[in-house]
Amino acid sequence: MSRKDLWVKVATPLTLTQVADLVEGRLDGDGSIHIQGVAPLDDASPVEMAFLAMKRYGRLVSTSNAGAYLVSSEFEYLIPAGLPKVVVDRPYPALRELLSYFSNEGDLSPGVHETAVIANRVHLGSGVRIEPFVVIEEGVSIGDRTRIGSHSVVGSESTVGTDSILHAHVVIYPRSVIGSNVVLHSGARVGSDGFGYTEINEVHEKMPHVGRAVIENDVEIGANTTVDRGSLGDTRVGVGAKIDNLVQVAHNVQIGAHSLLAALVGIAGSTRIGKGVWMGGRASATNHLEIGDAAQVAFGSTVMRDIEAGETVSGSPARPHREELRRQANIRRLEKLQKRIEILEAGSGDRD
Amino acid sequence: MSRKDLWVKVATPLTLTQVADLVEGRLDGDGSIHIQGVAPLDDASPVEMAFLAMKRYGRLVSTSNAGAYLVSSEFEYLIPAGLPKVVVDRPYPALRELLSYFSNEGDLSPGVHETAVIANRVHLGSGVRIEPFVVIEEGVSIGDRTRIGSHSVVGSESTVGTDSILHAHVVIYPRSVIGSNVVLHSGARVGSDGFGYTEINEVHEKMPHVGRAVIENDVEIGANTTVDRGSLGDTRVGVGAKIDNLVQVAHNVQIGAHSLLAALVGIAGSTRIGKGVWMGGRASATNHLEIGDAAQVAFGSTVMRDIEAGETVSGSPARPHREELRRQANIRRLEKLQKRIEILEAGSGDRD
Amino acid sequence: MSRKDLWVKVATPLTLTQVADLVEGRLDGDGSIHIQGVAPLDDASPVEMAFLAMKRYGRLVSTSNAGAYLVSSEFEYLIPAGLPKVVVDRPYPALRELLSYFSNEGDLSPGVHETAVIANRVHLGSGVRIEPFVVIEEGVSIGDRTRIGSHSVVGSESTVGTDSILHAHVVIYPRSVIGSNVVLHSGARVGSDGFGYTEINEVHEKMPHVGRAVIENDVEIGANTTVDRGSLGDTRVGVGAKIDNLVQVAHNVQIGAHSLLAALVGIAGSTRIGKGVWMGGRASATNHLEIGDAAQVAFGSTVMRDIEAGETVSGSPARPHREELRRQANIRRLEKLQKRIEILEAGSGDRD
Repeated sequence: MSRKDLWVKVATPLTLTQVADLVEGRLDGDGSIHIQGVAPLDDASPVEMAFLAMKRYGRLVSTSNAGAYLVSSEFEYLIPAGLPKVVVDRPYPALRELLSYFSNEGDLSPGVHETAVIANRVHLGSGVRIEPFVVIEEGVSIGDRTRIGSHSVVGSESTVGTDSILHAHVVIYPRSVIGSNVVLHSGARVGSDGFGYTEINEVHEKMPHVGRAVIENDVEIGANTTVDRGSLGDTRVGVGAKIDNLVQVAHNVQIGAHSLLAALVGIAGSTRIGKGVWMGGRASATNHLEIGDAAQVAFGSTVMRDIEAGETVSGSPARPHREELRRQANIRRLEKLQKRIEILEAGSGDRD
Repeated sequence: MSRKDLWVKVATPLTLTQVADLVEGRLDGDGSIHIQGVAPLDDASPVEMAFLAMKRYGRLVSTSNAGAYLVSSEFEYLIPAGLPKVVVDRPYPALRELLSYFSNEGDLSPGVHETAVIANRVHLGSGVRIEPFVVIEEGVSIGDRTRIGSHSVVGSESTVGTDSILHAHVVIYPRSVIGSNVVLHSGARVGSDGFGYTEINEVHEKMPHVGRAVIENDVEIGANTTVDRGSLGDTRVGVGAKIDNLVQVAHNVQIGAHSLLAALVGIAGSTRIGKGVWMGGRASATNHLEIGDAAQVAFGSTVMRDIEAGETVSGSPARPHREELRRQANIRRLEKLQKRIEILEAGSGDRD
Repeated sequence: MSRKDLWVKVATPLTLTQVADLVEGRLDGDGSIHIQGVAPLDDASPVEMAFLAMKRYGRLVSTSNAGAYLVSSEFEYLIPAGLPKVVVDRPYPALRELLSYFSNEGDLSPGVHETAVIANRVHLGSGVRIEPFVVIEEGVSIGDRTRIGSHSVVGSESTVGTDSILHAHVVIYPRSVIGSNVVLHSGARVGSDGFGYTEINEVHEKMPHVGRAVIENDVEIGANTTVDRGSLGDTRVGVGAKIDNLVQVAHNVQIGAHSLLAALVGIAGSTRIGKGVWMGGRASATNHLEIGDAAQVAFGSTVMRDIEAGETVSGSPARPHREELRRQANIRRLEKLQKRIEILEAGSGDRD
């Protein structure tokens, strides 16, 4: 079964002129060509547009069967003259516009599946969709048009806002707060107890966790990611933040608005991430740190101290990126350094 | 909705004198003040106590609205004179005492939900709680007062001890052994096949995994953590060990009693972790290693060789911590070293 | 309850002569001894064989109660003369043969559990097993003899081939393609949206993900591993690839045939892993890279650039392994280097 069989194009085809209008781009070529979808350079058919926004994929153009190209002005020169194209300055928003036109997630009808278990004192908003085997515990409130996927569990006294999507197999622990327009992917766990113990008579006794996990509006949380509840006070993921798969957000962590955490990131207890921060995949931060607004933490870095607002850091332990580059260069020069010392020693020996 | 609405204080308020008695602390101030709960410094109201045990949070005291303070003797000086406080030598056990008094998880009633699927030859102890959509396969035994959360699956011929909690969405593979007073968080997977293959005719053929996963008493395992079964012989998590979220415990790993593994730790196959070991977040160890009792592995370290009992290691690959610090200092000095060589070369050149 | 109670040996015992025939090994000792199973050196009973294929476990032989030994020719000398043994050149395939004979997973009967929710337009092959609380959405096709474990969800318009096993709690997002003879462990998530946003007016707007996740034949995917769907074009895990627990495979990643990814590996978006590649535990690769066929990436390494076919790399950032070893050695020599410079400075100072 090919990709095309599965991904039915339900939208009306667009002419290339219409595409250029839609994405506010410049048309170069025959505007009457009909486009039925977008596909990768090496997979697009003559009725599809291919997309080019990175130089390294330019090599795929010569063998592409695409009917037309959506290309950033920066790499327009990589499309041979004569091939129809739409040129844009900001390629990703344009691609998003086009994909949104052609894609069709299929509207899911509202309703409560007969197998769902809904406890007492539960408020369900209008237009909610509650899928098979969902469990909604006592005192929960679910906002209008929110969808709770199969098997998901919403713990007692939690609230979920409007227009949110919990995919299948999400677990929300009791007393959590989930905002509106939030997306939680399969296996996300929100509000689990944090990793907090205190040693009494050589045994680790658990600290009660009386804080909450609070997920603000417009947040997306990836598959199998975990967000612990606070011990004292709340754990909070700020408005518009986006978190990838398999990320750990420990107790009492604060993540600022519109920050992005890529896959396998780990944030230890009580650390505060500012607004608009970027943390690359597998980056991590120890506990009780402050990472300032708009800081950038490179892929794989290990943050062991506070980071200033706007700073870009890399390495393990993470340092200002320029410093880390210089450090790497210094290490690379070590062999030459040794040779220079040997020459000095030889010279010195000659003289002694 | 504010934190206070959700987290209902059901316990009788305490006077500050009673608090001091409860935590065995020293009262400084008006002992008749009534306390209704504990909250963070920047969130506490006049009927709540705030908690201070780290210097870096001392700056929050001046703007705190807390009615009184629970403070470690070490940082007592950070609370301005005149503010009512209870001073203790060991702040975390005191906090735990106080939180346990005020918190109320809400007793969950025993019983078997009508939607649960219970196979033949299953023993359910007295006072168990089996929540909606639980699956208990053939030959399983569940001890007294144990709670099996919604959707959890207990595989055939497994045993779970008494007073344990499996939160929602736990999966126990067949023939696993879970002790008493164990807590398994949502998404924990216990007893999955290990990653063991042998190459036959250029294809990776799977090794049968006939060992078990054994979780001893008083263990807590975090959300979405995985503990594989043994290939030959068992994987074992020792009594009182605590494991955080998103940790990988591979086949035939042995984790000693009362060891602590923080989030995103990975232990490769057959490695043996001693008793009372600490592994910081994101630390990892390759396979077939021995990590001695009471060893400390720093946040983010990569253990590639055996570690002596009591040793503290850091870095990647992990070394004794002092050695790693010296190594980092040596690298930092590289630029000065280069300059010293340049000076020597200049001097040498002058003379030649 | 001991291991032996749980793991019932249902197979007829073998004589040591029969064992030698089965594994094509050389018998040394009494061929009439009866063997009922295989067990670890430190746990085997007189009716069981123990297994030795690593030097470091040779020390366990002197105290083992095993009735006989399966040993690699390389370490035959570690078994004292007089003890009955079967000697083989390739110990792991031999062990696999023996374990497969003695193990018995217990055939699970086919059928559809009465609690399963099966939508319209679903094709179920002959001999399928659909366990409790499974959800199969519209338009799904499940091949012959495939088993769908408790609570697993197969999203709309997805296909699963023949003879595959989805353990309990697997989630397949809509329009995914799962091949034949595939094993997906508990908590595996296949086809979740990738982490793709584009900034419009300072807000991260989500890119539609119209590609699929495609899992080819003979693949095994570990517990709580996540495989995102493609944004444009597909994410693909090639035939015979094996992926361990808690691994992240981002959108549009391609994993070549027969590659092995150990636990906690993370592959960022659009990176292409060749055929027969080995990635050790916790290794990672940034986005848009090419890792050539048969490349080896050491435990914990961070790949930040393309890797040639056949290359072995280690370190963070990952370099050719020999280069990384030299780099580490150079750093180790730094202290001696400093002393050599001090000597030179002293000499130079004397003369000035």
